[in-house]
Amino acid sequence: MADHKTCPPLAADSIRAAYPLISPYIHQTPVLRSKTLDRIASTAQEESAIKGTAFEGQKPATPVFRLYFKCENFQRIGAFKARGAFHAVLRLCSELGIDQVRKRGVTTHSSGNHAQALALAAFTLNIPAHIVMPSISTKSKIAGTRAYNARVLFSGSTEPERVAMVEGVIKETGTAGLELEKQVEDLLKASGDETTLRGDSTLNAVITPLGGGGLLAGTATYFSSKPSTYVFGAEPSFEGGDDGRRGLACGSRISTVSTLTIADGLRTPVGQVSWTVISDQKKVRGVFAVTEEQTKEAMTLILERLKVFIEPSAAVPFAVILFDEEFRQIVEKEGGEKGWDVGVILSGGNTTVEAICRLYGEK
Amino acid sequence: MADHKTCPPLAADSIRAAYPLISPYIHQTPVLRSKTLDRIASTAQEESAIKGTAFEGQKPATPVFRLYFKCENFQRIGAFKARGAFHAVLRLCSELGIDQVRKRGVTTHSSGNHAQALALAAFTLNIPAHIVMPSISTKSKIAGTRAYNARVLFSGSTEPERVAMVEGVIKETGTAGLELEKQVEDLLKASGDETTLRGDSTLNAVITPLGGGGLLAGTATYFSSKPSTYVFGAEPSFEGGDDGRRGLACGSRISTVSTLTIADGLRTPVGQVSWTVISDQKKVRGVFAVTEEQTKEAMTLILERLKVFIEPSAAVPFAVILFDEEFRQIVEKEGGEKGWDVGVILSGGNTTVEAICRLYGEK
Repeated sequence: MADHKTCPPLAADSIRAAYPLISPYIHQTPVLRSKTLDRIASTAQEESAIKGTAFEGQKPATPVFRLYFKCENFQRIGAFKARGAFHAVLRLCSELGIDQVRKRGVTTHSSGNHAQALALAAFTLNIPAHIVMPSISTKSKIAGTRAYNARVLFSGSTEPERVAMVEGVIKETGTAGLELEKQVEDLLKASGDETTLRGDSTLNAVITPLGGGGLLAGTATYFSSKPSTYVFGAEPSFEGGDDGRRGLACGSRISTVSTLTIADGLRTPVGQVSWTVISDQKKVRGVFAVTEEQTKEAMTLILERLKVFIEPSAAVPFAVILFDEEFRQIVEKEGGEKGWDVGVILSGGNTTVEAICRLYGEK
Repeated sequence: MADHKTCPPLAADSIRAAYPLISPYIHQTPVLRSKTLDRIASTAQEESAIKGTAFEGQKPATPVFRLYFKCENFQRIGAFKARGAFHAVLRLCSELGIDQVRKRGVTTHSSGNHAQALALAAFTLNIPAHIVMPSISTKSKIAGTRAYNARVLFSGSTEPERVAMVEGVIKETGTAGLELEKQVEDLLKASGDETTLRGDSTLNAVITPLGGGGLLAGTATYFSSKPSTYVFGAEPSFEGGDDGRRGLACGSRISTVSTLTIADGLRTPVGQVSWTVISDQKKVRGVFAVTEEQTKEAMTLILERLKVFIEPSAAVPFAVILFDEEFRQIVEKEGGEKGWDVGVILSGGNTTVEAICRLYGEK
């Protein structure tokens, strides 16, 4: 692994350099706060809630949270992946020249949000996109990708060589963290709350969902140059969806996962490139996992109190804040009475009213 | 009625003066855009959709919309009413002195969001609040008001004299319009889209929900000093909920309404003070009404595409944009190819997942 002393600042710098390049094409998503959610998160759990855990019999923690929800569910295509896709295509254009890229077109293999993100970026820059999707992809995802004029091919087709865009566009998703940090600083300045403005960062911690790992690794890469901000990941535990946590425990990446967790954006195992960042304890301090019921409870609170429409995957980090006693003890112990300012990245928002009603009907 | 030439600028000035007073206590709510919703709104309706209306047989309009959604559902207590309540209490404190106000307490009569807004403002400024609610008020509304330490009394109780806060706090809700205008200007400047930056305002129109009329009247008062921005109201037509439109048609305010429209925030008739503004054609250009099904369709799009959690009342203005052919013809005719920039005020967001599932289950 690269030397921590020289590598992280360079990587964080490349995120800073990426930001002006992509910002004309992406939304600067808002940061929302809620005193009600702060209060709920800062209230101790019932003793019964930690029964059967390693914390049974202890007094439940009373951490103090000030939460900043970064609404990447409002990002274009409803997820942070638009950031990486625009950056990849813009970089390609500056390397090969836009005419060459337009002539050859771009291609990727994806069944989900990355397909749509690349299709959008290519469409915006008037570049042909050829997206290879598994033939079992859902109709709405195929339609979503086609809506940006992308040509959808199904796995197995043979095709002339295109410029392949890897899905593992990691660093640039750290621009969400960069934006969040700046917005929190502005919010604190506007409120005159100087006490929480620290030297190198305004946030004590940032927590993101963990699926393939791009968002967590990108965020961790950005904050690796800000040692006073810890980065955490959040996963579903259902049917072994907590491959990140288990991989860290056994010291090597778990490469296959088969879970039907409601957090469907987080069903994939951590990718190889992301793993090198996530398994670096100097970059990611910890990964926590929550149950389906905890994800649903956190999702209800975000919908009803924050008034933000999210898919279950986006609720997982807030579920960790509410229910993971180990995480809560860290914040109680290290934050003390003053508490912690915690950034919570919400991504994505790609669900339907029908799916939500089905989800809650299943109770 | 006051002279239009002198009165409106003064009223708009008083809104500008109110803004710095309340801004430390309220959220500056974000303005969201969606290219998908712009595209859907800018597509002609099916001919079958206007069958049976005055437009039957005509070619459906193809207006061009650029929409700016002002998310007052993210406002404190989930609705614009927090603006008026904070202003009323702060003004009272500056008139009587805070000690006197704390000694006497404040009171109001309300079953809904105004009760909660006043309770929040009083709680924040450490003033006792005594809220008189109808005894049939729902438990969740009573609990919401009590959560801010307000004393809840039920109609009919006798009580010592308190400082009565009228519900009809109108002008200050115009601060939502002021903020929106400034934010749209910033957005357009940031995007370098100078062509749509006009002299006295960046918006061609603003459309708000119309229930009691405070939000529409306040918005219209603010924009009365900007003659190039038209203000419109939007109502549910179910069971006569379109009392504003009917009142304008017959030339006098309709003072009683009994509707169980799903847009439950808009069930009340237009109040007397608001009516003087709304019935002034120089201030409000028109009021349109939509069906329950149209409100539901607009709500689905806002939830799924804009990713914003709203109650049905908040969807009514967007339903007018999508489905009212008369409104769409105005925009087509006056906006032409260049189209209109339209601000859409979303308020409020006080609903539950359970209520939404019930609403869509009824289909």
